[in-house]
Amino acid sequence: MEHNEQAYICIKALENGVSVMGMTRGRDTRFHHTEKLDAGEVLLCQFTDNTSAMKIRGKAEVWTRHGCLHSGMEETK
Amino acid sequence: MEHNEQAYICIKALENGVSVMGMTRGRDTRFHHTEKLDAGEVLLCQFTDNTSAMKIRGKAEVWTRHGCLHSGMEETK
Amino acid sequence: MEHNEQAYICIKALENGVSVMGMTRGRDTRFHHTEKLDAGEVLLCQFTDNTSAMKIRGKAEVWTRHGCLHSGMEETK
Amino acid sequence: MEHNEQAYICIKALENGVSVMGMTRGRDTRFHHTEKLDAGEVLLCQFTDNTSAMKIRGKAEVWTRHGCLHSGMEETK
Amino acid sequence: MEHNEQAYICIKALENGVSVMGMTRGRDTRFHHTEKLDAGEVLLCQFTDNTSAMKIRGKAEVWTRHGCLHSGMEETK
Amino acid sequence: MEHNEQAYICIKALENGVSVMGMTRGRDTRFHHTEKLDAGEVLLCQFTDNTSAMKIRGKAEVWTRHGCLHSGMEETK
Amino acid sequence: MEHNEQAYICIKALENGVSVMGMTRGRDTRFHHTEKLDAGEVLLCQFTDNTSAMKIRGKAEVWTRHGCLHSGMEETK
Amino acid sequence: MEHNEQAYICIKALENGVSVMGMTRGRDTRFHHTEKLDAGEVLLCQFTDNTSAMKIRGKAEVWTRHGCLHSGMEETK
Amino acid sequence: MEHNEQAYICIKALENGVSVMGMTRGRDTRFHHTEKLDAGEVLLCQFTDNTSAMKIRGKAEVWTRHGCLHSGMEETK
Amino acid sequence: MEHNEQAYICIKALENGVSVMGMTRGRDTRFHHTEKLDAGEVLLCQFTDNTSAMKIRGKAEVWTRHGCLHSGMEETK
Amino acid sequence: MEHNEQAYICIKALENGVSVMGMTRGRDTRFHHTEKLDAGEVLLCQFTDNTSAMKIRGKAEVWTRHGCLHSGMEETK
Amino acid sequence: MEHNEQAYICIKALENGVSVMGMTRGRDTRFHHTEKLDAGEVLLCQFTDNTSAMKIRGKAEVWTRHGCLHSGMEETK
Repeated sequence: MEHNEQAYICIKALENGVSVMGMTRGRDTRFHHTEKLDAGEVLLCQFTDNTSAMKIRGKAEVWTRHGCLHSGMEETK
Repeated sequence: MEHNEQAYICIKALENGVSVMGMTRGRDTRFHHTEKLDAGEVLLCQFTDNTSAMKIRGKAEVWTRHGCLHSGMEETK
Repeated sequence: MEHNEQAYICIKALENGVSVMGMTRGRDTRFHHTEKLDAGEVLLCQFTDNTSAMKIRGKAEVWTRHGCLHSGMEETK
Repeated sequence: MEHNEQAYICIKALENGVSVMGMTRGRDTRFHHTEKLDAGEVLLCQFTDNTSAMKIRGKAEVWTRHGCLHSGMEETK
Repeated sequence: MEHNEQAYICIKALENGVSVMGMTRGRDTRFHHTEKLDAGEVLLCQFTDNTSAMKIRGKAEVWTRHGCLHSGMEETK
Repeated sequence: MEHNEQAYICIKALENGVSVMGMTRGRDTRFHHTEKLDAGEVLLCQFTDNTSAMKIRGKAEVWTRHGCLHSGMEETK
Repeated sequence: MEHNEQAYICIKALENGVSVMGMTRGRDTRFHHTEKLDAGEVLLCQFTDNTSAMKIRGKAEVWTRHGCLHSGMEETK
Repeated sequence: MEHNEQAYICIKALENGVSVMGMTRGRDTRFHHTEKLDAGEVLLCQFTDNTSAMKIRGKAEVWTRHGCLHSGMEETK
Repeated sequence: MEHNEQAYICIKALENGVSVMGMTRGRDTRFHHTEKLDAGEVLLCQFTDNTSAMKIRGKAEVWTRHGCLHSGMEETK
Repeated sequence: MEHNEQAYICIKALENGVSVMGMTRGRDTRFHHTEKLDAGEVLLCQFTDNTSAMKIRGKAEVWTRHGCLHSGMEETK
Repeated sequence: MEHNEQAYICIKALENGVSVMGMTRGRDTRFHHTEKLDAGEVLLCQFTDNTSAMKIRGKAEVWTRHGCLHSGMEETK
Repeated sequence: MEHNEQAYICIKALENGVSVMGMTRGRDTRFHHTEKLDAGEVLLCQFTDNTSAMKIRGKAEVWTRHGCLHSGMEETK
């Protein structure tokens, strides 16, 4: 039985081709899935028994418990 | 026995043909269901033992614990 | 034994013929029940072991943990 | 042993003949009880192992965790 | 062993002959007890393994988690 | 073993002969104890495995989780 | 093993001869202990497996979760 | 194993000879220990499996969850 | 296994020779340890399976959940 | 079964080549994985059964429960 | 298995030679470890199954749940 | 199974060669690991079954539940 009461994060792509890459939990850390988002698409996703990290590449809003980050943006550089 | 006390999200379609795609929990990440919404329809849905991610395509309000996002909208581009 | 301490949502129909459709929890996602509401009727309902999603069609107030949405309304289009 | 620590809702009838209909929990969704209220009567009731939804018909105040709704009222039409 | 840590409600009769009727929990919903209150009497009572609903008839203040309702009163009619 | 961490209520008699009547929990609802209070006496009491309701008759302040009620008083009649 | 994490109340006698009477928990409700306090003495006491009610007679401050009551006082008569 | 996570109270003696008397938990309520405090001494103590009540005699500050009482003082008489 | 998640208190000696005396938990209440503090030394200590009371003698700041007391001081006498 | 309800941190690279190095939990503390981030990429990651420390090298925003730190930045030197 | 979710305290040495002495939990209270800190060094440490008290000697900031104390300082003498 | 839901602390080195030394939990307190940080590097780390104390040497910001300390700094001397 899985813990599906896990918190979730929200990702909104702001350009085509945003990648959300899930990374494996456990001893071996590697990518196990890549979800491609087009501009305007929203992805809601949880950490799971299989996923303990996610990497976001491309322009997107990333809504998390720590606030809203912007990936792929130049605003703080 | 499932954990049906899961938090839920709310999606309100703002145009016809909004897609809410459920993605499988577990080792294999793929779409297992797509729900089509017409303009004005509201969908309330939970993460489950079978669903650990959802993808929303088309103009919609997405009400989450992190606030209200707008999918398919141009307002931040 | 079921978890009947589940949170509940409130739906108030604002026109005749509002549909509240319960969708099955589990591997197979399909409608298992449709409740029809006439104008002014209020439905209070929970997510259950059998229901992990609900779809609302027609003009209604939908009271949720994320606030009050209006289904079938034109106000944000 | 039942979970009787369930939250409760309050319904106050504002006219004679208000109906509060309990709907069955489980695979089969149907009415299992209808309580009739006359004007001024108050009903306090819980969701139970047997009831996962309630439908209110007629003019009433419905006090819930999401606030106080008015069933059968014209004020928002 | 019962769960007697149940929340309680308070009812204050504002006229003689106020009825507080306990309704059975379980498959069969019927009245199992009626308590009569005279003006000024206060009843504090819990939901129990045997009671999942209560009906109040006559002029009374009903103090609940959702606030204080007045049964049998004309003020909102 | 009883649950003695139960919340308690406070009753202060404002006249002689105030009655606090404990009513039985379970299938059979009847009085199992009556405590008489004289003016100025304070009673602190809990709901128990044996008591799921209490009735207060006579002038008293009743301090509860919902606030302070006055039994036997004319102020709201 | 007892539940000694029980909340406690505080009683400060404002005259000699204040009585704090513990009443038995369980089917039989009777006094099992009376503690006499002289003016200025403070008693801190818990509800226990043996005590589900306490009666205070005489002038005292009674500090509870609902606030501070004054027993034996004329101020509200 | 005892529950030593119990809340504690603080007593500061304001004169020599302040008594803090522990009273037994259980069926039999009697004094099992008396701690004498001189002016300025501070006692921090918990309710335990053996102590369900404490009596303070003499001038002292008694810091509790309900606030700070003064034992043996004339200020409210 | 002990419960070492216990809350802790802080004592800062304001003169040489401050005593912090631990008193035994259980049926027999006696001193089992005395810690001497010199001016400026700080002691952080927990209630334990062996300690249910502590006595502080001499000038010190005693930081507790109820605030900061000053032992051995004349300021409130 | 792992505890995947773990809190997560957010890292946004502000230059190419930011390293996030996971360090092993347990008796032996060593690097078990290094994730390289390019400018604008966001990494969300959890502490796991295998990771009890992380080291960030290079210019990045590190969003944590204690606030937002900037690694590799000169602003406080 | 130990309870390592224990709260922690923070100590910052403000002079060379600050001592943080851990004292044994259990029947026998004695020093089991002394950590020496030089000026500017910070020690973060938990109460453990072996440590139920700590003594700090020398000038240091001691950050605790009750606030920040200064050991070895003259400011309140 | 370890408790990896442990709180974490954040350390940002403000000069080269900052040391974060992990100290063993249990009867024997000694250093089991030293992590060296260069200026600008950030370390996020948890207390674990093996680590109950950490010592930080050198100029760094130490973000903890009690606030942000500066190690190796002269500002309060």
